[in-house]
Formats: sequence, structure tokens, C-alpha cells
Amino acid sequence: MSQHTPVVVIVGGGFGGLSTARALKKAQVKVILIDRNNHHLFQPLLYQVATSVLAPGQIGSPIRGILRKSENTTVILGDVTGIDTAARCVLVNSADRIGVKISYDYLILATGVQHSYFGHDEFEKYAPGLKSLADAVAIRNKILRAFEQAEAEEDPSHHKELLTFVLVGAGPTGVEMASAIAVMVRSTLKHEFRRIDPASARIVLVDMATRPLGTFAPELSDAAQRRLTELGIEVRLGHGVDSIDDEGVVVAGDRIVSKTVIWTAGVAPSPAGKWLNAETDRAGRVRVRSDLTVQDHPEIFVVGDTASLDQDGKPLPGVAQVAMQQGRYASSLIRCRLEGKPCPSPFRYFDKGNLAVVGKGFAILQSGKVRLSGLLAWLVWAAVHLQFLAQSSLRVSVFVQWVWTYVTGQRGSRLIVKHHCD
Amino acid sequence: MSQHTPVVVIVGGGFGGLSTARALKKAQVKVILIDRNNHHLFQPLLYQVATSVLAPGQIGSPIRGILRKSENTTVILGDVTGIDTAARCVLVNSADRIGVKISYDYLILATGVQHSYFGHDEFEKYAPGLKSLADAVAIRNKILRAFEQAEAEEDPSHHKELLTFVLVGAGPTGVEMASAIAVMVRSTLKHEFRRIDPASARIVLVDMATRPLGTFAPELSDAAQRRLTELGIEVRLGHGVDSIDDEGVVVAGDRIVSKTVIWTAGVAPSPAGKWLNAETDRAGRVRVRSDLTVQDHPEIFVVGDTASLDQDGKPLPGVAQVAMQQGRYASSLIRCRLEGKPCPSPFRYFDKGNLAVVGKGFAILQSGKVRLSGLLAWLVWAAVHLQFLAQSSLRVSVFVQWVWTYVTGQRGSRLIVKHHCD
Repeated sequence: MSQHTPVVVIVGGGFGGLSTARALKKAQVKVILIDRNNHHLFQPLLYQVATSVLAPGQIGSPIRGILRKSENTTVILGDVTGIDTAARCVLVNSADRIGVKISYDYLILATGVQHSYFGHDEFEKYAPGLKSLADAVAIRNKILRAFEQAEAEEDPSHHKELLTFVLVGAGPTGVEMASAIAVMVRSTLKHEFRRIDPASARIVLVDMATRPLGTFAPELSDAAQRRLTELGIEVRLGHGVDSIDDEGVVVAGDRIVSKTVIWTAGVAPSPAGKWLNAETDRAGRVRVRSDLTVQDHPEIFVVGDTASLDQDGKPLPGVAQVAMQQGRYASSLIRCRLEGKPCPSPFRYFDKGNLAVVGKGFAILQSGKVRLSGLLAWLVWAAVHLQFLAQSSLRVSVFVQWVWTYVTGQRGSRLIVKHHCD
Repeated sequence: MSQHTPVVVIVGGGFGGLSTARALKKAQVKVILIDRNNHHLFQPLLYQVATSVLAPGQIGSPIRGILRKSENTTVILGDVTGIDTAARCVLVNSADRIGVKISYDYLILATGVQHSYFGHDEFEKYAPGLKSLADAVAIRNKILRAFEQAEAEEDPSHHKELLTFVLVGAGPTGVEMASAIAVMVRSTLKHEFRRIDPASARIVLVDMATRPLGTFAPELSDAAQRRLTELGIEVRLGHGVDSIDDEGVVVAGDRIVSKTVIWTAGVAPSPAGKWLNAETDRAGRVRVRSDLTVQDHPEIFVVGDTASLDQDGKPLPGVAQVAMQQGRYASSLIRCRLEGKPCPSPFRYFDKGNLAVVGKGFAILQSGKVRLSGLLAWLVWAAVHLQFLAQSSLRVSVFVQWVWTYVTGQRGSRLIVKHHCD
């Protein structure tokens, strides 16, 4: 028993970190998973919290609950602040203690991404981004409060700025948010206001690209754009925002007055590259080798959005599927090495396809040569997302909520809560 | 059409305000309901949000959603700051505007209560109270974080203070919170920690009274106390807390080290008495006449927890039933006056009974001469609380969650979210 059990430290409880931990459940290792949140977040549905459809607890579940049966795994709530690669330890602030050292034999960095304002950090104050549950709750407050303020405001000349919503960035988050707001103003909020008509709200989606959802095939972007227009959303492409301030945004010299601007554009990787002092790509993601390890550090793996790896000459996309497959690959490599077996061939991403939803009962789907848009794609979207929720209880609860919202138009969690700061 | 439609302003969307507005749905009046929150809060289940069983959205529903079909009612999100009784208008801060005047012909004040530290406001920093959803989320964070900190803390000598929970006040909230924490440590958190045993947590319930749940009959208090002891809760009666600081509490000279102290003791009424410059009782509640109006102001009603009225020589209790019955009474009086009919007889509270839950499958019930404790009382408790939830969708969702929690021990919303300040 005096033999040292290898310690695998995983930083991050997102799709990458969690799939690594799960795959190591029966390995002869001690796993320590560190996250600064107590919950795994099902990020693909985060926009539904921001638009009041789902409650935070329906897409966030305690990491230690998910890993309850992984007896070799200890979950630690803490903030990683650095890595000492020579001493092989991670520095963590946890439990009110600063710089606790946690030693590893293998390290998995699965630290994801945060927003990026592309050098315009002054935009953040006016245009919050959407990455965490706290962000989603803050954006939900902001959207709902705009309607409340308009209803309380007796001077109709102020209604326009309060009832204009601008989404900056026409990727999946921007498109999904814009269409969810459009559906909300026409169904959920109908009949609830006496002085304003929520359906008169103006929703503007801005992107410097020339089509929305640029990672999809052009014909699917076109289908999405037609759908956005049907939903009454103004899609303004080909120009980014010149500026954002407390009166709204300026796009190609044109001012759009709005009290509610939401940043759905850029992401930047976590500081993992700095911690490792490793080579990064232009976006700041850590360049990994074909086995997902870092140059000169075969014991350090980087997986998911914070890793940079090309496949067939193209960088892998920042999606949950990549992170999960990479997490499983890293864990299998660790097991092979420990058991002295030959290592598996280099990591290869198998793309099962991509989906984006555009309002009620409409999605686009691209998988291999399949291109689909409309209700059928939306049903696939719903089924896939339910399937990937971490816990079966959440599957039931989200499914019931979706059916309820689909049928009645009512949403599940339309609260404005002025949270205490802590 | 030039005839003036009487305006009824209701301040507060709790049980009292909401029942008034509902009862005025078909009256020939214009109703304006003002609340500082966008949601009605089902306060009797607030402790279940604080202990992770329910999500905030399951006990809070948008007031304007509840009153959607009351076409004569406008809902305003705003903070009332004062009342000009001579000019008959309410002063409101809303939509970023200060001191908006809203005129009334009839005014209903249903502003409820807030915590009171009985002159020890310095306790608040260490012992938060439980009155709003934001409070419940903050207390949930505090409780869950204590277990996380203990798990991250490698020095076991610090575990004791992190795993001790003190509830100050053995009324319904204190008893329900203490028992919900006790159930959580033995079921939900089981198997999830590797360094600590959550079941070793110490839970202490303190009150200066000599029995818990003092508003119930002595034999029911005794039954509750036996049950609390069975749940492993230390019940310390007959002494209040001498002091509370960041190291814990002192009770009768004895220090209990604890990082998690929760205030479940006192409440004080809203400033309605000051707004009106009206006579109040010693607790600060507005003395109302037998028709719930204020002396010299037959157009102003005070209902619910912020009103003081004796019945059969005893003050009416601060419970939802009283507020709802008073709200309906006030609205019937207004309708009679408008229609020139004879006024109804003085308000009389009909007490349907009281309930308090003590852990899983156990409650006490007192109704007329009926005294009941145990599983049957708990089933009545569950049925009554489901019935009084404002919206049918919440009834379904809370019922499903309760069954799930009862069967699996899992809770619905066990999140630590570091909210942005706003």
C-alpha cells in the first residue's frame, strides 16, 4: 500500500474536464477535479436562462453530485492561479486560503473560454456577455427590467430606447438569443402590459460577417436569415459596431438607441497558456501535439476550447463535442501509459454534426452531407440537447418545461432578483 | 366617458396585495399595483430555496403574469418612498425616475415585514435573515460553500467551525431550516465528499423561548422538539444569543464556533406607519380600525403583516391567511362603497389552522381542536402548500420536485452562483 497512486489533476468541470473524470472512474489513479464553480454548466442552453425559459438549476448541476459514484475522485471548489510545471503542482485559492499547492502526476487543463471584447473592454459595461450562470441571470434581469421600465414610464418618447434590444454577434448565441427574445415578446409577454405593446419591441442582430451562423453551410445561413426576418428581427450584416455607450450602439455611422445591448460576439481562451508559458495560437489557445499534450510536457494535456489543434488543415471548432472527445482521449492515453500498453493513435475528432435553433420549432442542422432546416431539425436539436444533459432528473425537468413553454407560451423563470453581492 | 373611474392603488404584491387585486378584477375601478419586485413570492416555501430543494422560479412568479387577465389592473415595478395623504398620492421611484406621483382614490398598503435584529443591526453581517429570494440565494450559497470549504480544507481542525450551522430563532423558519439542513447532510450530500463526512455536521437551534414553535399548542411543540432531537439537531432554549461575530455565537456565556449563522428570529413591519404618520403598536405595525382602514382616512386600508388588529383580545398573527382574508375584505368594502350598498360587518379572521414541517415526512398541525403530528400532518402540509401556489404550472413543478427529492434525496437547485452586483 506504500506504492504511490498516480494523481491526475483536472482543472475545469466543463464538458472536457467532466468527460475526462468520468472516463477515469475505474482507473487506478486518484483524480482531483478543481473548478471555481460548484456546478457543471450545460452551456448550449445558457441563452434559455438569459431569456427566462429555464431556471439556472435546470442547466447547472453540482459537479460532485455528477461524480458521486466516482470514488477515486475528489472535487475541490477553488480558483487556479498558476502552475509550477517543474515541481508538478497547481496553485489554488480555495477555502479562504491562498496558493494551496496540489501536486499532480498528470494534469488536464480544460479551462474553456471567457468573453473577449477584441480590445474594447470599455464595451463590457454596456454590453454584458454570456458565459456563466451569473451572466445569464444578469442579462435576464436586464431584459425583463427594460419592459418593466417602459411600462412604468408614462412618457412614450422614452419607450423606443427601452424596447430596443441589440445583439452584437450573429453566431449561435446571438441568433438563439435574438429569436428567443422575439418569441417572448409575442407570446409570453402578450396581455401582460397596459401601457406598452411588447410585440412592438425592436430586435437588432449585428455582425461584421456577411451571413449569420458562419460556421454552417451558406444555404443554412440563408434559411436562418429568412427565419430571423420572419420573426421580425433586423439582421444587419457586413459591419461590426463602431462604439457602444449608455445610449446604444453605432453601426456603420448609424446610431441605434437602446438600453439593452448584449455581447454575443467574441471569446478568448482562459489563461492556461500563460500558466504553462507555452506556445499559443493567435487567439491565445495552447498549441497541443497530436496526442493533446504540451511540447516538452507529456504529462500535461490541454483539452476543449482552450486547446489549439488543426485537423485536415483546419482548426478544430470550440464546441462541446470536441472537448468531450478530447477528454476521453486524454484519459485513455493516461490509462495506456500507466498500464504500459502501446499508446493509441493521434487524436482525431469525429464530427457528428452541428445544430442551431432559430426560435420556436425551427433549427438548422448540418451533419456530414446532410443539410436540414425547420421543425424536424428542431426536434433533433431538442432530442440531442436533452440527451446530453448531465443528469436524468434535469432531462425530465427541461423536457416538461419545454413542452409547457411550447404549448402555453409561458416561461419557467421570469424573475428579476436584485442579488446581494458576495 | 368623462366620468372619473376610481383608482385603487395597491402597494405590495404579497398575499395581501394580490388577493385584493384579484378580488377587484371585475370592479368598475382602475387598479394600480406597485411592488419593488417583479414577482409574487410564496414565502412559506422560502426556506426550501435556502436549502436547495426548490429553485427561486418555483416559488416566485411574475405579478403581471398572475394578473394577466385582470384587464383593469396595471402593474408597476417601483419603490414606494412615501405617501401624501392630503393630496392622495403615492410617491414612487420607478424606471430610473425619482418621486413619480401616483394618485389614488383608495389606497391599500400591503407592504409586509422585513427582518429585525432587535436593535443589534451589527448581527446582520454575520447572520443573514431570510425574507426575499435574494436572501434565500445568499443563504444557499453560504450553506453550500461551508461544505465546499471544509472539503478543500486539508487541516481537519478547521472542519468543526465550517460544519457547524446555527439558526437563531426557533419559530417556523428556524425549525424548518434546521430540519431541512439535517435531512440534506444525511441524504443529499452523502457519498459526495472524500475528506469530510457531511453527516457529522452540527446543527444548533437557539431561542430565548422555552419551547420551539411557540404559537402552537404545547404538546405540538413537544412533538416538534422530539423530532428535532431525532434529526440530530441541538435545541438550546431559554437563552437568546448574547453576541454574533465572525467566529460564531455566544449563548448564555457559551461560545459555539460556526462560520454559518442564520437569523430566523425577528421581523419588523415595513415603514407604512411612518409614511402615514399613523398610530402604530409597539412592534411598529399600523393600528387599523375594525374595517381595516386607518384613523381619519376611510380611503386608506392596511392589510396583512404590517397591520395591527386585535381579535378576541389577541393580536392577529402575521400569516398569509390573515393577509389574504383582509385583502378580500378591503376589496369588498371598496365595492360596496362604490355601489352605495351597506357596508359589510367588521373584519373577522377565520383561522383555518396552522402547520409547520419538521424534516422529511413530519409536520405538526393545529386547527380548531385538532392537534396532529407526523406523516399525516405532513401530507396535509404538502397539499395545502401546493394548493396555495399562485400558478398551476408551479404546482406541478413543485409537486414533481418534492416527489423526486423524497424518493432520491436529491435536491433541485444546489448551486453556488457568485452573482454580479446590480
